[in-house]
Amino acid sequence: MTKQYHDNVLPGEALDQIFRDARTYNGWLDKPVSQDQIEAIYDLMKMAPTSANMQPGRFVWVTSHEQKDRLAELASDGNKDKVRAAPVTVIIGYDIDFHEELPWLFPHTDAKSWFEGDEEGRKEGAFRNSALQGAYLILAARSIGLDCGPMSGVDLDGVTKEFFADQPRVKADWICSIGYGDKTTIFDRSPRPDFAKFNTVV
Amino acid sequence: MTKQYHDNVLPGEALDQIFRDARTYNGWLDKPVSQDQIEAIYDLMKMAPTSANMQPGRFVWVTSHEQKDRLAELASDGNKDKVRAAPVTVIIGYDIDFHEELPWLFPHTDAKSWFEGDEEGRKEGAFRNSALQGAYLILAARSIGLDCGPMSGVDLDGVTKEFFADQPRVKADWICSIGYGDKTTIFDRSPRPDFAKFNTVV
Repeated sequence: MTKQYHDNVLPGEALDQIFRDARTYNGWLDKPVSQDQIEAIYDLMKMAPTSANMQPGRFVWVTSHEQKDRLAELASDGNKDKVRAAPVTVIIGYDIDFHEELPWLFPHTDAKSWFEGDEEGRKEGAFRNSALQGAYLILAARSIGLDCGPMSGVDLDGVTKEFFADQPRVKADWICSIGYGDKTTIFDRSPRPDFAKFNTVV
Repeated sequence: MTKQYHDNVLPGEALDQIFRDARTYNGWLDKPVSQDQIEAIYDLMKMAPTSANMQPGRFVWVTSHEQKDRLAELASDGNKDKVRAAPVTVIIGYDIDFHEELPWLFPHTDAKSWFEGDEEGRKEGAFRNSALQGAYLILAARSIGLDCGPMSGVDLDGVTKEFFADQPRVKADWICSIGYGDKTTIFDRSPRPDFAKFNTVV
């Protein structure tokens, strides 16, 4: 039975935790993130929608010192130390051949055939929908009491080559550190636009 | 003072509402969405992170019968009736010249200069980060007790031309209906992958 929550606004503190008080951190407390927490994040984020349930995101969770060093080498100068210090940094990649999985991911119809022979369309769909999944990942991590530090300052071709070597159709797109944020490492909150600035109602 | 929520896992019912029980709807109850609700969604989603706070998303909220018809004409056959029936359908677009706004959106440093002369990089950043914003939009709408129906089956060039005519550097990217979902219009839940399928921990 489908449960609905019409007009049920989440408590203010929950909205604060995932949207309003949450911040992007540049440094981390020395406190580990467990495999259970990593899987809890994924078990939430995977429930949120992607187009035709394509789930094109492929995720490498970097947790060992050795692999953090390897990833840090490929990060921009400003991001190297962040990657080394974070308990986990997840690489968000996308699979250009996600359509091969559609027969089981979207069993209602033959969605695979929509994408066959259209590599450009697949690349666009994979890019857009893996970005959605990355956003779900950030809010899922926050919803279990963790903080995030998303970063795009990284040599993506290098990360693709180093971390998706066994998946030749996957491209790395950005990275996101996860852990317990260190309050002393955040900037002042950047301004947010009023509704009228970037929105129109017609 | 920055408030933190370390190890505070949101109540199961909140996680159900935004991730686990929420569904993508194909039809809508005859119940309006107010301007206050639209603004409440934006006021939450705008707090979530984008790269250098670029906030490249530009949003047109289609609420009037006349404009719904105009948008429905540009939707794929399977989506026309959904757009006509939904209380609101928001067009998610992105501004390729978002960097012009960075002096006030990211006042910590001269981020505008990072993007000048690099239209390809701006397009990629705008595409990725407006997708993140669209994902925040979906979870924000759910968090105030509304349902979503995201769709990419739409003539994007047509929507760009018709709905962003006054913003020549903005491109439409996808659309998302918002309202009170009609339970009778959903498919069976599509399968979700186990952690091991698309994740690696290193």
